[in-house]
Amino acid sequence: MRNLCMIVSYEGTHYHGFQIQPNKVTVQQKIQEAIHVLTGEETIIHASGRTDAGVHARAQVFHFHTSSPIKLQQWTLAINARLPKDIVVQNTFEVPESFHARRSAKSKTYRYTIRNDRLPDVFRRNLQLHVPVKLNWQAIEQALQHLIGRHDFTTFASTKTDKASLVRTIYRAWIEEDPHDPAVKHLYFKGDGFLTHMIRIIIGTLLQVGRGKRSSDDIPTILLGKNRALAGPTAPAHGLMLWEVEYDEIPPYGSIVSR
Amino acid sequence: MRNLCMIVSYEGTHYHGFQIQPNKVTVQQKIQEAIHVLTGEETIIHASGRTDAGVHARAQVFHFHTSSPIKLQQWTLAINARLPKDIVVQNTFEVPESFHARRSAKSKTYRYTIRNDRLPDVFRRNLQLHVPVKLNWQAIEQALQHLIGRHDFTTFASTKTDKASLVRTIYRAWIEEDPHDPAVKHLYFKGDGFLTHMIRIIIGTLLQVGRGKRSSDDIPTILLGKNRALAGPTAPAHGLMLWEVEYDEIPPYGSIVSR
Repeated sequence: MRNLCMIVSYEGTHYHGFQIQPNKVTVQQKIQEAIHVLTGEETIIHASGRTDAGVHARAQVFHFHTSSPIKLQQWTLAINARLPKDIVVQNTFEVPESFHARRSAKSKTYRYTIRNDRLPDVFRRNLQLHVPVKLNWQAIEQALQHLIGRHDFTTFASTKTDKASLVRTIYRAWIEEDPHDPAVKHLYFKGDGFLTHMIRIIIGTLLQVGRGKRSSDDIPTILLGKNRALAGPTAPAHGLMLWEVEYDEIPPYGSIVSR
Repeated sequence: MRNLCMIVSYEGTHYHGFQIQPNKVTVQQKIQEAIHVLTGEETIIHASGRTDAGVHARAQVFHFHTSSPIKLQQWTLAINARLPKDIVVQNTFEVPESFHARRSAKSKTYRYTIRNDRLPDVFRRNLQLHVPVKLNWQAIEQALQHLIGRHDFTTFASTKTDKASLVRTIYRAWIEEDPHDPAVKHLYFKGDGFLTHMIRIIIGTLLQVGRGKRSSDDIPTILLGKNRALAGPTAPAHGLMLWEVEYDEIPPYGSIVSR
């Protein structure tokens, strides 16, 4: 049995998230079906983590075991030929038996995209949240700084979370203006892991700051409050994209492609 | 009655083209329905020209007459609130009674987008033709030069065209590399008008040149042949976008937005 690792991009618009569920169309299901067609094997793939319904991935990572004789360099094109057009495998690596897409991850980066202008961009409407009211980006930037570091993120986690510890570390968080469109801002979050809905709740709260409904100085207080009710609403899924997952065993995605 | 002119963007993926047809979902139908909801008027809109099924528009232009008292500055947001998310009106202008979106047009620019790389871009898959085989862009550029100017474009027109004259002038044609993604090339065509399928047949022929299946020097000969059978196949619709229509009566779209 070989342990194969793939980097996969998908547009989440038409899926009920990554993880397989009965009677729902999911990304995991489509990938497992494609592997089944190729190898005849009933395979379970293991991703770096699930993504919610409507959330996208530039570079989700998963691994699976196979006895298939298909050569490593043929896997990427072979699986793409069996996948729907909104799921594209970018690379396939053979990894040590010990590699596990979730447990071996060193860090994860998500990106949330906001178009802050009068009108939406019709060609990116599924990839960015349209916010027509003017936002105070300086205040959002200040609020963002308070989230960096090691914190108990109970305030910013779905109350449905089943995790034992709600302590996570955000290594970096930063805002980039889109080079094509100055009205579009990308908010990046790099951390050791993120709780259910954590980034979407952070964004919902940052949007309240940006609209002047609360101060950026509130953030340390609500973090310490450890109560979901203190944070803002959960922002829509479609602005969120799993940007990158880092491992020691495979090269960084940014070194393979740039876009 | 006022004469109103609107600039509209749409993603053509889910429409049977611009022009209204029985039992088909079209962009014109959606816009006329939105105007009807707003004004109670049964309106016919007149566009700069039709676009085929699957073809997109950054800046299609249409005009229509209305007795509605809705203020000019309220029209854009009001109509967008009644349109599906893949159709977005960008601007509304009041124009002289003599203005006609087709007859008053001074020039039209189309853009065709090709991603020439091993894998498609999952997030732009509906907006660009994916060509995995390596293309000779220098040969394509040379072929393109032969098309500039005033020609009888019978060779590059659908045999179904009903136009009396097949003479058209291409003022400029040029290739730009996408600033985000060097694998993506945009081919622009600016002219006094384009025949049915003309740009898609040009692209189908340029792709043959790019793949070495014919020489760029063939272009003048096949133009003179005035025979559709001499050109290449019609390239897929989804790479094509109506980029801009120029008028004396309204400001250039590029001066309003940049993306």
